[in-house]
Formats: sequence, C-alpha cells, structure tokens
Amino acid sequence: MEDYGRFLALLASALLVGFVSVILSFVWVFHYREGLSWDGGAGEFNWHPVLVVTGFVFIQGIAIIVYRLPWTWKCSKLLMKFIHAGLNTIAMILAIVAMVAAFEYHNAQNIPNMYSLHSWIGLTALIFYSLQLFFGFAVFLLPFAPVYLRALLMPIHVYSGLTIFATVIAAALMGITEKLLFSLRDPAYSASPPEATFVNCLGLLLVIFGLLILWMASRPHWKRPLEENTKVLRPIGGTAEGTEVESTMTSSSNADKSDMRINTEAARKQNLKFDESSQRSTM
Amino acid sequence: MEDYGRFLALLASALLVGFVSVILSFVWVFHYREGLSWDGGAGEFNWHPVLVVTGFVFIQGIAIIVYRLPWTWKCSKLLMKFIHAGLNTIAMILAIVAMVAAFEYHNAQNIPNMYSLHSWIGLTALIFYSLQLFFGFAVFLLPFAPVYLRALLMPIHVYSGLTIFATVIAAALMGITEKLLFSLRDPAYSASPPEATFVNCLGLLLVIFGLLILWMASRPHWKRPLEENTKVLRPIGGTAEGTEVESTMTSSSNADKSDMRINTEAARKQNLKFDESSQRSTM
Repeated sequence: MEDYGRFLALLASALLVGFVSVILSFVWVFHYREGLSWDGGAGEFNWHPVLVVTGFVFIQGIAIIVYRLPWTWKCSKLLMKFIHAGLNTIAMILAIVAMVAAFEYHNAQNIPNMYSLHSWIGLTALIFYSLQLFFGFAVFLLPFAPVYLRALLMPIHVYSGLTIFATVIAAALMGITEKLLFSLRDPAYSASPPEATFVNCLGLLLVIFGLLILWMASRPHWKRPLEENTKVLRPIGGTAEGTEVESTMTSSSNADKSDMRINTEAARKQNLKFDESSQRSTM
Repeated sequence: MEDYGRFLALLASALLVGFVSVILSFVWVFHYREGLSWDGGAGEFNWHPVLVVTGFVFIQGIAIIVYRLPWTWKCSKLLMKFIHAGLNTIAMILAIVAMVAAFEYHNAQNIPNMYSLHSWIGLTALIFYSLQLFFGFAVFLLPFAPVYLRALLMPIHVYSGLTIFATVIAAALMGITEKLLFSLRDPAYSASPPEATFVNCLGLLLVIFGLLILWMASRPHWKRPLEENTKVLRPIGGTAEGTEVESTMTSSSNADKSDMRINTEAARKQNLKFDESSQRSTM
C-alpha cells in the first residue's frame, strides 16, 4: 500500500477522535445531565445523543472505511461485504433506538414530534440510510443482481453512503444546538457554562471525525486492490450474474481511463461500460 | 459530453433549487421578520441569513461546478480560473459581511458572540474558506508554483473545497435551528407556525442544493476535457514551472490508471506522478 504510514496515522486519528467523541457523549449525559434510563424521563432522551454518536456516526464511519484496511485485503471480498453490511446494520439499529428514545421522551413529556429542521433532516437521513442498506444488501450482497446493474448502481451507492454520513453529522450538530439551547437555562448557553464548551467540543470532534473518514474513503490509491483470483469476465455485456468482481470505494476512479485512451465516442462508452462492470460492481 | 441531457437537467435543478433558496431567504426576512437595515437592530442581523444563503451557499456552489459547464470548455483555462476565483471571492466577501452583521447586531443588543457551536463551525469554515482562496490563488492562478507542487496540492484543494462547502451548509442548518428557536415565541417553534415550516423547507432546499452540486462536481465523466493545445511535458519530472496543464475537479480520477496497468511499485509511482503532473496540477 502506498503511503501506508500516512494511512495508519489517519486511521489512528479517526479511531481516537471517534472514540473520544463516544466517551464525551457518555460524560455529557452522566456528568452534566440525568444519566441513562428508559422511563420517559430525561434519562430516556439521553440515549438519543449517545446512540447517535456511537452508532450513527462512529460505527457508520468505520463501516465506510472497512474495505480500506490493508490487513483485510487477504480476506475474501464476501467476508468484507458481510462486515460492511453488519456494521451498517448495527449502526442502523442503534440509530432507530435513538429515534425511539427521542419520540418516547417527547410523548411522555407532551412535547410535539417532528417540528424542527433537526428532526426533519435526521429522520430523512435514517430513512435513506435504511434504504441504502436494503438496496446494498439486495444488489451487492445477494448474488442475483446482474453485473450491469451493480455497475450502474455502485457510484450511486458510494455517493449516497458518503453524503448520508455527512448529513448525519450535520443533523447531530443541529441536535447539539437544540439540546444546549433547551437545557442550559441558568446559566444559559450564551453565558458559555462548562457544559456548553464541553459539548461544542464534542460537535467539533464529530466534524473532524467526518473529515478524516471522508478523506480516507475518497483517496483512490488506498482502495482495496484487485484480487488475483478475481473472476472478471472480460467480454463486454457477457458477464454472468453473481460474478465475483472487484470494487472501489471511489466511484470516480476508473471511468477516466477511457477518456484518455479511446478517441471515438462509441468506443469510449464501451470501454467505460467495461470498466464499470469489472471495477465498480460491488462494494 | 456524455449524458449531456442529464447534466443539463441536474444543472437546471441546482440553479432552480439554489435560486429558490435565495428567494426564500428574502421572503423569510421581509415577510416573517423585520426586513433589512444596518442600524444594529433585527434588520441588521437579517443580512446574516440572506448573505450566507446567497453568497456562502449559492455562489460558492456555482463556483465549484463552473469548470463542468460544457459551453465553457472552449474558453481558455486561465479565464475559467479567474471566473472560479472571482465567484469564490464574491462569496467570501458576502460571507464576511454576513458575519459582521451578526457580530454588530450582537454587540448592539449586548448578546455574547462566539458561544454557540454554530458560531464556532461557521467562523472556522469562513477562515478555512479564506485560506483556501489564498492558497488557490497563490498556487493555481499565479504562475510561480512548480507543477509538482500543484500536483501535490490539487487533491487537497478539491477535497477542502467540497468539504468546506458541505460544512457551510451544515452551519447554515444550525443557524436556522438557532434563529427559529430564538425568534418563534408565541407560537413557539414546537407549535409549527407557518414561519417554522417555511424556514425548515429552506433548510431542506439547502441540503438538496448541496447534494446536487456535490454529485455534479464528483462525476469524472463530466469534468473539463484535456485541451488540444495543452502543453503537457511528457517526460517525468521535466515539467517547467508555469506550464499550462489540464485539471480535474475529481481528485481521484486519474491515479487509478497506474493501478491497473503497471505491476511494479516503482513504475506505478512514476506513472502516478506523471498522471498527477499532467492531469491534476491546476483547478
């Protein structure tokens, strides 16, 4: 792997920042707030930030870069797909429980649901995340989807994954803003009490975590290399269903070869199609 | 251009969504709020959302995709660089005025500055945006930077540009959340008065605008093609300073060619270096 040391440094930084974010979310609810419970009180709401930071941000972030870990490159692609899907499933479950905690707390306290921009964007992100998981499972993990469909959907899968992740972080920042404005009364948020500064720092760490994950996920030279035994069928349009093909996290990494070397538009399209079929069809 | 129709449809959608967002920000401050003024009152604060939506989101978004417009491909690269830098400069000035409006309003009303996560992230984004403009100007527009430096910095320039843009939208969503919680008292935000729903919709439009711009900016087959008269010096390491070279918006678009065709690590690195020198060195 090129720049192995730099990759490891970034990975260590991301793990550290993500782990510290999770710790800070627990310190927030236990030290500054009412702890955790499931009784319709403030302790039930507190599951919301803790599970969002742990599952919807940290675990989702790790799921995004799991193909990039060089020591997994000797593992089969199918195993890595299961790990990718498994981590995302765990993240989705934690995110759903986080949403339920917020709704149950609101209902118990007679607070309206779904009025804020935070709730609109957070729920939309969760719905798209669930759809992403469903279609990812159906298209890239189950062996039924034809290669051309995988090739067609892979750039969308990658783009959706990265933008949903970024949107989740944006929703978390809005949630922090809401919660600090609601909770801090005397002294208020504007007086910058220790809790305000502490949770603002948590918000900054979430942004830094997101930036590290997105950088690692979008460097083409850190993607999982082609497997030696990859059964790529070369003839265009002749690939069998369920063919084991190689993937790239970076949707934009291969299409350009055709731009460089083929002059006619028809040949360029054919080459692009071949590249996509052979290179992009699975996560 | 491949998928010209689809590109045009997406561009029209982005322009429409961005333009409607700008209109909605004006409707918000004139119909629901106190209009615009520069007297330390609420009307001065209102410049903040209007200028952020107009400059820091809409104009920055257009600046990001300006190289992708196919009818500009006959224009010189230098002209396009000036347009890219010019639009970003306008966006930066509007963003700075927006910040000044918020600070002056706070000072006039004895409201503390820089206590909220929104202010931390918004100001950080503005500082990085200014640095991005400065370094972009110094490295990619002025003719002094050597090609290897441009090649080294281009992926960072592209990544920073796209993530600053996304961060600005996140900060805008946090700002909307804050403003609605502060301003809506009777009825409150939680009672979903028309203004709340209206401004939530503005927030959703900002997200959709961001998603459209990021999709267009990250499709490799929509990037500006190599110019016929491009003076690319082919020998590795032998490129002259200020050589007119081609660019790509997608930092990950060319490095992969070497992955596919060259087996030895040394040759791969050389090829990558050549690709970067010839393909990535300027915006």
